[in-house]
Amino acid sequence: PDQAAQAAAAAREPTLTKPPGALGRLESLALWLAGWQGRHPPQVETPRCVVFAGNHGVAALGVSAFPAAVTVQMVLNFERGGAAINQLCRANGVALEVVALDLDTPTADFTQAPALEEAEFLAAFRAGVEQGLRPADLLCLGEMGIANTTSAAALALALFGGTAEDWTGPGTGVHGAALSRKAEVVAAGAARHVPEASDALDLLRRLGGRELAAIAGAVVGARLNRVPVVLDGFICTAAAAALHALVPGALDHCVVGHASQEPGHRRVLDTLGQQALLDLDLRLGEASGAVTAVPILRAAAACHAGMATFAEAGVSDA
Amino acid sequence: PDQAAQAAAAAREPTLTKPPGALGRLESLALWLAGWQGRHPPQVETPRCVVFAGNHGVAALGVSAFPAAVTVQMVLNFERGGAAINQLCRANGVALEVVALDLDTPTADFTQAPALEEAEFLAAFRAGVEQGLRPADLLCLGEMGIANTTSAAALALALFGGTAEDWTGPGTGVHGAALSRKAEVVAAGAARHVPEASDALDLLRRLGGRELAAIAGAVVGARLNRVPVVLDGFICTAAAAALHALVPGALDHCVVGHASQEPGHRRVLDTLGQQALLDLDLRLGEASGAVTAVPILRAAAACHAGMATFAEAGVSDA
Repeated sequence: PDQAAQAAAAAREPTLTKPPGALGRLESLALWLAGWQGRHPPQVETPRCVVFAGNHGVAALGVSAFPAAVTVQMVLNFERGGAAINQLCRANGVALEVVALDLDTPTADFTQAPALEEAEFLAAFRAGVEQGLRPADLLCLGEMGIANTTSAAALALALFGGTAEDWTGPGTGVHGAALSRKAEVVAAGAARHVPEASDALDLLRRLGGRELAAIAGAVVGARLNRVPVVLDGFICTAAAAALHALVPGALDHCVVGHASQEPGHRRVLDTLGQQALLDLDLRLGEASGAVTAVPILRAAAACHAGMATFAEAGVSDA
Repeated sequence: PDQAAQAAAAAREPTLTKPPGALGRLESLALWLAGWQGRHPPQVETPRCVVFAGNHGVAALGVSAFPAAVTVQMVLNFERGGAAINQLCRANGVALEVVALDLDTPTADFTQAPALEEAEFLAAFRAGVEQGLRPADLLCLGEMGIANTTSAAALALALFGGTAEDWTGPGTGVHGAALSRKAEVVAAGAARHVPEASDALDLLRRLGGRELAAIAGAVVGARLNRVPVVLDGFICTAAAAALHALVPGALDHCVVGHASQEPGHRRVLDTLGQQALLDLDLRLGEASGAVTAVPILRAAAACHAGMATFAEAGVSDA
């Protein structure tokens, strides 16, 4: 982070007309925004949301409650303004961009082969970097891709260990025998690729998908571009966690908007040392949890920049 | 609540393009808004915030980290736009009104006499009812009043039992011996007035203050006016809790915006069976926690009203 901007924020904070610490996390978020935007005061005036979409070979294994065709159907729904993320972006003043990544070419079934070839992975990662480099003062990331909780669970298992059951949850609504089958797919994927992978990004290539690769790329691009990032739920956070596994501190410019009901998310958050801003039982993806948290960051910046000091307001200090 | 509006919301919810339940609490909030607004679809387009301010006789007992003069100084700060609540209302599109209640006449020291005479109590309560009756589709309530965590703690102790220490917290920043002294004041107030009080509203008169009475009045007025309410932290919720103690269900049209760091708040929330929408370590009052939560309610209404159905979007259902 930018030390000068963060120091300026830290100097201003205790002069504002409130008891010390009374704005709680809004105070620390203002300092975090200043540091990672490299600007004092920080601002949240041009937030963007990017939703990356991809298709997954493992969808053919019956790991989702919805057919694979729903990915492209939902991308059309995003483009026509009918999905939850459209309403959330409009309500919260966030610009939305949807990036469909080769939907006609699903990844390979990762129980049989790496999900992506190196060139495919790099193309998706680069598409993410380009999004991260676009102008914005805050970037929300999210995804759409039938079967991608399966990818995220396999990736998390490969990166952080434990059992397949630890990381496998209902996703869009898989229960009972289908959930057990999903955990078997997750276990098979991790077992196949962990021994052969060269590092955490290679695991992302082998077990992830194009939208997961793009999210990791966008996190990197935003860091280079001094844009703080709001991560979404399990899939988005698992994709970003590959960067953390590669380089601790790689996600210091990221917060997590919402703690998903998908059980693997809390486990990833614990691993990353992240505490989500919201906990409202969402489990939708689409960046819905990230965008729902944007007003909290806007509030933090607004209080920090706009409040009067004790001296300006003629209020007696404690 | 309006059963027809709530039923219409309940019928629409499962048709929207998302897995069932995937918007979590946003789904139940949409139904709650529809029921208490008596309208389908619900909307959050004209939210208001009212901050009531009052002065307290017990401030002379040294229970606050700030002098009593800060109440009127902060009201001026609100009027000039310099306080946290001004920034939060502006950032979240909430209209703000500040109602100063006889600041030149503090309540009586409740360890010696009832805080308010009956006529004073009714005037303050009525000022709140009038605010609740004004046009709005959502009403955030909050307060300012040096020493009013002491009033709120005494009221909560009188209403719900336990020990003075259970309900007494640092407020603006009281610790150590001063905190023990504050708990003694709380205990003395409850001990004096519980035996003499006729009911929960009489306890509110004896131990509360004008801003607490007005909050209770505003909750009642909003109910009559079909305006759902967002309560703030410990003081605001304790004042409203007097209505709950009088008539269970009296707060069914209320949610709590934020779980305060003031320890008594969580205890009141448990008593009321309320789960706050946010948990960001705030402990400021001024309706800051209520207004910070408004975008969540706006998001709930926006998703419910604006999302396409599976049929409209041509998305395959599970």
